[in-house]
Amino acid sequence: MARKAAIIGGGVIGGGWAARFLLNGWDVGVFDPDPEAERKIAAVMANASLALPALSDVPMPSEGSLTFHGTIGEAVEGAEYVQESVSERIELKQRVYAQLQQANPDVLIGSSTSGFKATDLQAGAPNPANIIVAHPFNPVYLLPLSEISGSPANPTEVVERTVQIMKDIGMFPLVIRHEIDAFIGNRFLEAVWREALWMLKDGIATTTEIDEAIRMGFGLRWGQMGLFETYRIAGGEAGMRHFMAQFGPTLKWPWSKLMDVPEFNEELVDLVAGQSDAQSGMYTIREL
Amino acid sequence: MARKAAIIGGGVIGGGWAARFLLNGWDVGVFDPDPEAERKIAAVMANASLALPALSDVPMPSEGSLTFHGTIGEAVEGAEYVQESVSERIELKQRVYAQLQQANPDVLIGSSTSGFKATDLQAGAPNPANIIVAHPFNPVYLLPLSEISGSPANPTEVVERTVQIMKDIGMFPLVIRHEIDAFIGNRFLEAVWREALWMLKDGIATTTEIDEAIRMGFGLRWGQMGLFETYRIAGGEAGMRHFMAQFGPTLKWPWSKLMDVPEFNEELVDLVAGQSDAQSGMYTIREL
Repeated sequence: MARKAAIIGGGVIGGGWAARFLLNGWDVGVFDPDPEAERKIAAVMANASLALPALSDVPMPSEGSLTFHGTIGEAVEGAEYVQESVSERIELKQRVYAQLQQANPDVLIGSSTSGFKATDLQAGAPNPANIIVAHPFNPVYLLPLSEISGSPANPTEVVERTVQIMKDIGMFPLVIRHEIDAFIGNRFLEAVWREALWMLKDGIATTTEIDEAIRMGFGLRWGQMGLFETYRIAGGEAGMRHFMAQFGPTLKWPWSKLMDVPEFNEELVDLVAGQSDAQSGMYTIREL
Repeated sequence: MARKAAIIGGGVIGGGWAARFLLNGWDVGVFDPDPEAERKIAAVMANASLALPALSDVPMPSEGSLTFHGTIGEAVEGAEYVQESVSERIELKQRVYAQLQQANPDVLIGSSTSGFKATDLQAGAPNPANIIVAHPFNPVYLLPLSEISGSPANPTEVVERTVQIMKDIGMFPLVIRHEIDAFIGNRFLEAVWREALWMLKDGIATTTEIDEAIRMGFGLRWGQMGLFETYRIAGGEAGMRHFMAQFGPTLKWPWSKLMDVPEFNEELVDLVAGQSDAQSGMYTIREL
């Protein structure tokens, strides 16, 4: 019998998780009150079925079965794992966990939250030990990173089980050593996002130009190696210490506006959304 | 007769430029007082000769000839373009430009500087109009981005000529709209670097873990599309405005330590360099 995962919340992220589990042979039960959920998940699956197997060296198992359910209790029946991807509202997430644990007390719950700590998610839950963060990156069916972040309430066994499930569906689980808001990846993305908004606001570059700078520059190398390894190479034969000696002190230079944040107002939204429309508005999200 | 470029400064960056020009059929004259320069450039060329042609769909032209010279004046003789990649010391760069323009008054000079503005580079030069920033990313022979940043002293024709030369050697020139310190790419890298140093210092993650988070997460997608286009997709069918409405306000959340910089001291250098050694110390720079 196939293993079963429940997907609570079937948007862009939940749909990506559903595709990963299905294509790796798991059965998937979905709960999402949105009447469009079925259509949206079918669209993600269509993309994923084309893309994911092409990345694998070995044949994929036969696809699991996908079912939609009218209640959380039905969706989680017989599931060993739940991936929760509802909106980023803490009280909503906590309500979902209560219903899940009422229906299936032992099920392991991973949250796609991009900001809340496991400690916050667990507060008031019937069984806090079984709730953990498993934060993916979009598109979930392609990008392997899953940030696993537990609290002191999670026994080691729960962390290990989550790690193993992620590996079983082809993810790369990274266990975060201490609880922090937004984990690792999003902290970097937030830093870049802030800087990008300043540049736009100051008229230094457009959204297209910023994207080209990333795509044609460090984006290309970051697909292969990360920050420290590329800097090690930049240090040349003298290595990392040389790099630090050469570039470390520039930390104090006024090279960014990061000491401050741009005011988030209608004008800034118009500027970004307008330039983004000009850049990519001619393509549907699917085509992109 | 082949076109000729002069390379002033033959380190990791200068060597990468030399390889790009040579493999695209230009003759290259190098000046670097380091007695090791010839060996270092040969090493970069060996890597580049293997890697660069493999990325091209069309046959490369026959390789140009490489010569080393004892003076700046000899290196720049007959050159239409100079790429300056000496150390980041403004008075050194200005001295180099004076010597270049004395020997070859009309030569176009692009600087690899990662921080100085064109205005600063031009100060006191015999012919400021011919000095411009052409900032590459390491490894220069592979990454296409070249940030072109001029000052009001540069006529449009100089900017256009620089852009064309970059295209001729397979680079992707991006003209920056206004002069800013560190241009675009490095401002992003600096933001990520600061955040990474905080994480290391606070024990959230090691250099290896941070690199994996980048490599397995957004690094993979940034090789194909940049920040705004990926966020547009994250907004799903509702697009960029939806994304901004959902995530924009998090700008104000304490998601990063970017309002402050970690103190740059021996302890921090030891931490980073030590972890980097553990991560990659078993490989030479060439193997990396």
